[in-house]
Amino acid sequence: MTAPAQTRVAAERLDAADPLAPARADFALPDGLIYLDGNSLGALPHAAVARTRDVVEREWGDDLIRSWTKNRWIELPTRVGDKIARLIGAGAGEVVVADSTSVNLFKALAGALAMRPERRVILSVADNFPTDLYMAQGLIALLGGRHELRLVAAADIPGAIDATTAVVMLTHVNYRSGAVFDMKAITQSAHRAGALTIWDLAHSAGALPVDLAAAGADLAVGCGYKYLNGGPGAPAFLYVAERHQREFVQPLTGWLGHAAPFAFETGYRPAAGIARGICGTPPVLSLAALEIGVDGLLRFDMAAIRAKSLALGDLFIRRVEARCAGRGLALATPRDHGVRGSQVSFTHADGYPVMQALIARGVIGDFRAPDILRFGFTPLYLRYVDVWDAAEILADVLETRAWDRPEFHARAAVT
Amino acid sequence: MTAPAQTRVAAERLDAADPLAPARADFALPDGLIYLDGNSLGALPHAAVARTRDVVEREWGDDLIRSWTKNRWIELPTRVGDKIARLIGAGAGEVVVADSTSVNLFKALAGALAMRPERRVILSVADNFPTDLYMAQGLIALLGGRHELRLVAAADIPGAIDATTAVVMLTHVNYRSGAVFDMKAITQSAHRAGALTIWDLAHSAGALPVDLAAAGADLAVGCGYKYLNGGPGAPAFLYVAERHQREFVQPLTGWLGHAAPFAFETGYRPAAGIARGICGTPPVLSLAALEIGVDGLLRFDMAAIRAKSLALGDLFIRRVEARCAGRGLALATPRDHGVRGSQVSFTHADGYPVMQALIARGVIGDFRAPDILRFGFTPLYLRYVDVWDAAEILADVLETRAWDRPEFHARAAVT
Repeated sequence: MTAPAQTRVAAERLDAADPLAPARADFALPDGLIYLDGNSLGALPHAAVARTRDVVEREWGDDLIRSWTKNRWIELPTRVGDKIARLIGAGAGEVVVADSTSVNLFKALAGALAMRPERRVILSVADNFPTDLYMAQGLIALLGGRHELRLVAAADIPGAIDATTAVVMLTHVNYRSGAVFDMKAITQSAHRAGALTIWDLAHSAGALPVDLAAAGADLAVGCGYKYLNGGPGAPAFLYVAERHQREFVQPLTGWLGHAAPFAFETGYRPAAGIARGICGTPPVLSLAALEIGVDGLLRFDMAAIRAKSLALGDLFIRRVEARCAGRGLALATPRDHGVRGSQVSFTHADGYPVMQALIARGVIGDFRAPDILRFGFTPLYLRYVDVWDAAEILADVLETRAWDRPEFHARAAVT
Repeated sequence: MTAPAQTRVAAERLDAADPLAPARADFALPDGLIYLDGNSLGALPHAAVARTRDVVEREWGDDLIRSWTKNRWIELPTRVGDKIARLIGAGAGEVVVADSTSVNLFKALAGALAMRPERRVILSVADNFPTDLYMAQGLIALLGGRHELRLVAAADIPGAIDATTAVVMLTHVNYRSGAVFDMKAITQSAHRAGALTIWDLAHSAGALPVDLAAAGADLAVGCGYKYLNGGPGAPAFLYVAERHQREFVQPLTGWLGHAAPFAFETGYRPAAGIARGICGTPPVLSLAALEIGVDGLLRFDMAAIRAKSLALGDLFIRRVEARCAGRGLALATPRDHGVRGSQVSFTHADGYPVMQALIARGVIGDFRAPDILRFGFTPLYLRYVDVWDAAEILADVLETRAWDRPEFHARAAVT
């Protein structure tokens, strides 16, 4: 394990010795910016510039409709799905790229409830990412209110799984705190009670090693535009364990999930395998960019990414605590590597203006209501010196109360 | 009305006098290709090249997460929706861009059934585009089979609407034949019976004048990648008449349809107005390209587009019938302008290899099972001489039986 640097020179030395250092050159990063928000929108891989141009100019412009076969657009959902599978411990044919995380969660939830028709509880935590809860609420209302979304504290999840639980629906890494659930232990608890699991990998895929197979996971969804560097609003993915695929029925039965889409039959017949998770026509430009982001991650070792992510987080915690003591910050993220994702969060009573002041100084993190300053660590394009400098700037913003200006208090529509 | 040209020189004269002729220069079209498949994938507007580069390189690459406010990504779904509204006779605030046509149909259908809880029939036609039928089947199965998808012949729709009908779900222009439903008359019939309507505008939006307001339409969906020239898999749109929006609840209750997405509340509260039709994060690259396509259409008069579309279709029918008599073709599209969309279809017993041979000769149409040769007419980038030449090439392919070669009979995965 890398010991946190005690000086900026020491941080520079860590960069010089970093096996992932060359990856930074693969990304377009504005000068003078320290980007600690790759957990919200990953940076642009240089290769995505050329790829999107080619998709637009040659594949769309020149080849037009022929690209569905000639340039294999039709394979994109399963081909990119197979690549993502390698990042999350899934097998080929277990992951498909389609729609948004929210829509895929709807498919997974509806599919899970159909596999447990006699059970009525969807178990989750109140601080799950809201869209997960909202999608469950929407499905429950649609089904006539026969089901219940039961929300408990994270620590109470194992004890709350019982014979009424149809599915345990959790986000692997908490979006606010960065705390990680024990996927394997909870999945095993669920299985012992006859329940299924749905894991939302929004803050895990590409961020830390995930092993869905080893955990015995049933269903999962995840996001393309965070650690996978797929671009803004990149399509999301759906995982269905191979053993469940024959039984898996999902209600968004669009034509590209049909066994024979171009036979134009009147009745829906689900495709074999994971392709039944596809609904409508995928957004090709966005999907092509996602493939580049995923390819970029596959060139590096996830264990090395994880080691550097934790070292960057350790350095940030150490420096912030050393430099900002008494300034109202409190660590909201577990120190323990075993239960920490690839982000570090602090609470601060004036978190909103503090983050705006930081952004104005070129340190991009984000704010999550009510009081969370969130900093994401993406080892492919962050350096130890960036983390060092970010902590110094945060210390200065707090020490000088640079955040206490009217323009930093004004709330934007999107924060 | 433009009389069909009797000679190629006359076709050239029509082009010279065509008020829409300058629009062709706005599109990238490969040399030597006659593209009659803009009804399946619209051509690339030159402006989309620069726009997608800018979205990728500056907005994603440089501005990163800040683009949600700085470059107003957050407004894209409603802003582009408002632009599409102007093409389909809807008001500002009645259309939103989101997800795929299939997913939007699910929202519209579920919303309509919730507004007619005591009724159990979804009425449609057996030759509707399959994904519409499939989505209805998926929703019905999810709801426990209490509803029925009743399919009748197109001519029987008005008589089949009764007190059991919850919603009449039709594609305005038939994807195979190009026949157009009388939106206003059917909507009025539905309303007299207390039913709602959902119009799929996949082959109407941008293709012919649509007036949802004048028709009294309730709900509609449509496609971004056909006549709107939004690029492959461009996101789709959803229309909810303003008078229904307060009552409209749809089950895909993702965070961006929430009244306060960035408050991260635990419970879903629908946004006011059409924004409640949004689910997850939109694919920004694809959505930005769609805006360019829509902007391109808005620069021209839809009445002029319609007039040229019909004239192109008339010319094609006239020339094909003159040059291909006795070659096994039969017109599958109404001659009557009042009920014809922007495509012309012919049946042919060997339709599949005939279309492959045509494509090999540079005339791109498409084949729709079991026997339809489909030709789309997109007046912004097609010339009268293109139509003339396409008919000549079709005549030659049939006369010489150029289609009867093994490579043209081999079925591709996507046709």
